[in-house]
Amino acid sequence: MTLKCVTDGIPEPDAHAAEAARARQAALTKPQGSLGRLEELSIRLAAITGRPLPVIKDKVIITMAGDHGVAQDGVSAYPPEVTPQMVLNFLSGGAAINVLARHVGARIVVVDMGVDYDFDPHPHLLVKKVAHGTNSILCGPAMTREQAEQAVEAGIEVVEAEIAKGLDIVGTGDMGIGNTTPSAAIAAALTGEPVSKIVGRGTGVDDAGLARKVEIIERALDINKPDPIDGLDVLARVGGFEIGGLAGVILGAAAHRKPVMVDGFISTAAALIAIAIAPQVRPYLIAAHRSQEQGHGIMLEWAGLEPLLDIDLRLGEGTGAALGISLAEAACKILSEMATFEEAGVSDKEEE
Amino acid sequence: MTLKCVTDGIPEPDAHAAEAARARQAALTKPQGSLGRLEELSIRLAAITGRPLPVIKDKVIITMAGDHGVAQDGVSAYPPEVTPQMVLNFLSGGAAINVLARHVGARIVVVDMGVDYDFDPHPHLLVKKVAHGTNSILCGPAMTREQAEQAVEAGIEVVEAEIAKGLDIVGTGDMGIGNTTPSAAIAAALTGEPVSKIVGRGTGVDDAGLARKVEIIERALDINKPDPIDGLDVLARVGGFEIGGLAGVILGAAAHRKPVMVDGFISTAAALIAIAIAPQVRPYLIAAHRSQEQGHGIMLEWAGLEPLLDIDLRLGEGTGAALGISLAEAACKILSEMATFEEAGVSDKEEE
Repeated sequence: MTLKCVTDGIPEPDAHAAEAARARQAALTKPQGSLGRLEELSIRLAAITGRPLPVIKDKVIITMAGDHGVAQDGVSAYPPEVTPQMVLNFLSGGAAINVLARHVGARIVVVDMGVDYDFDPHPHLLVKKVAHGTNSILCGPAMTREQAEQAVEAGIEVVEAEIAKGLDIVGTGDMGIGNTTPSAAIAAALTGEPVSKIVGRGTGVDDAGLARKVEIIERALDINKPDPIDGLDVLARVGGFEIGGLAGVILGAAAHRKPVMVDGFISTAAALIAIAIAPQVRPYLIAAHRSQEQGHGIMLEWAGLEPLLDIDLRLGEGTGAALGISLAEAACKILSEMATFEEAGVSDKEEE
Repeated sequence: MTLKCVTDGIPEPDAHAAEAARARQAALTKPQGSLGRLEELSIRLAAITGRPLPVIKDKVIITMAGDHGVAQDGVSAYPPEVTPQMVLNFLSGGAAINVLARHVGARIVVVDMGVDYDFDPHPHLLVKKVAHGTNSILCGPAMTREQAEQAVEAGIEVVEAEIAKGLDIVGTGDMGIGNTTPSAAIAAALTGEPVSKIVGRGTGVDDAGLARKVEIIERALDINKPDPIDGLDVLARVGGFEIGGLAGVILGAAAHRKPVMVDGFISTAAALIAIAIAPQVRPYLIAAHRSQEQGHGIMLEWAGLEPLLDIDLRLGEGTGAALGISLAEAACKILSEMATFEEAGVSDKEEE
């Protein structure tokens, strides 16, 4: 079975490469530690890739889309037809993720994981549709266990195809009207925190909408009773196809020693599913940013991730991941391109 | 007098351009406000430049170097000869700022404002040397008032020459062994906060070094009694040549409606001097990052600046400014390159 092979194949991070990177950071012409999290990031990227001088050149953002039965229940400020409309916007290059991916020199892969719309064939649209949207989690599980597996395995296939083309880092991105609701349900199920602490306004619901969202998620958890020690079960009962696909991207990337830049709230829900399936994936994850969405902090803490950016993003699509990827690339360049004290003839710190 | 002409020439930010940018942000295919500080930044850049769709293409980092008499008194972990050594490292492209400037596509201008060393002529080194280092602030003022004015006016000249070549945003950078000491003295003088709350470890002094640094700055303030309502007086009594130069860069840029990306602790001290000289410069300043250096938060608050990044940088040179410039460019591209709801045929939020 693909999924088991992949999770079994996730290697330990490379401590030797990390040590070599750390030693080099100490020899570069700057006070030790003065580049803060960029230094730390470069050392982590060495551990992930197994290369003392990791290189980030081929940057890929995988943006996965899916629809959600629960979106019919008024959990979003936007109507469900926006999911396919935004997919078309991604394909024509006019969305925020297109702009930011171009800015950082990343290519985008747009994947239909389960949009409730049949797209005309398009050279830049990958169709891995599991179904036309999930079932409403108020009426039973979002999907079958087989569909959950299919979604995760599709994500693995997508990232492996990109790795074959050349990929040094992958960013995750999502699109799906209503998908903060399944993401919050996943977070509540896995972290055990109360729904009211996790649920936020998504793309912009009002106070009444927020209260309804909390109630809907509590009911969905009550109806579906996801098993927190079984990541696939949580995904099947309260998840989404794009979330499952992104969990697969994350697991597949880790199995190939590729760093994953995790975007915001929905991508972090996918990361939680991936960790629940295979905890050894954790060292491969880098959190791009702290979302404005309430509850993201709880998820990051559970995952043991410290985000790089804190600039009030709450869009998804991979927008935060794009900016994070640029920082990761900068961190690698620092390690590779800076002169050492010896090379530059600069006096090092005076030892006492 | 150049300085007065420049400060008199700093215009009000353009409220109409800001309004147009704000309206466009609301029409772009994303939930309103979902790009958080990037949206806010794009609106500020519109106000600064007077253009509803500001463009950031020509990016310049001005890194100014100077030596400090007080560095002889053991306030730094590095010997003073590192200042000219690092200038040579900048010129040969091996320093952190070179790497990060290349990463974000910015050009660097290296300026000798007062290094205690005579450099051989170099095509990429601008020499605006006011003197061979400042006097020790433990023996009297760092420089004369005339020298302070000369330093600020040299900074104006440098930035105006770059504007003539093409400049859409300028980042500030510094190099000067010992220069966290004058910067902390400036911060204490202008904000009125106690020295012990402002002083940090700079490039890495130990506990005894830290206590000595606090004592030195308290003595320097006591000996020199800088006048907090007179920016040039504060600069002359406890400042540095590169700090004065950067204050000039900031004032000169603002007079030409150019946004200034302020780097860390030392650059913020320069910004404080600029604000003390001409408070109307404030809207032109963008804080790149929150430095690890203690006291930076106090300075930012006094200046009314909210930093973009918080990734534990404490290097200077303009490294944080380089990363901030990339975010500013991204913010402008969002405004210019994203499709509107109407253009993309995407349904907007349902109004109730």
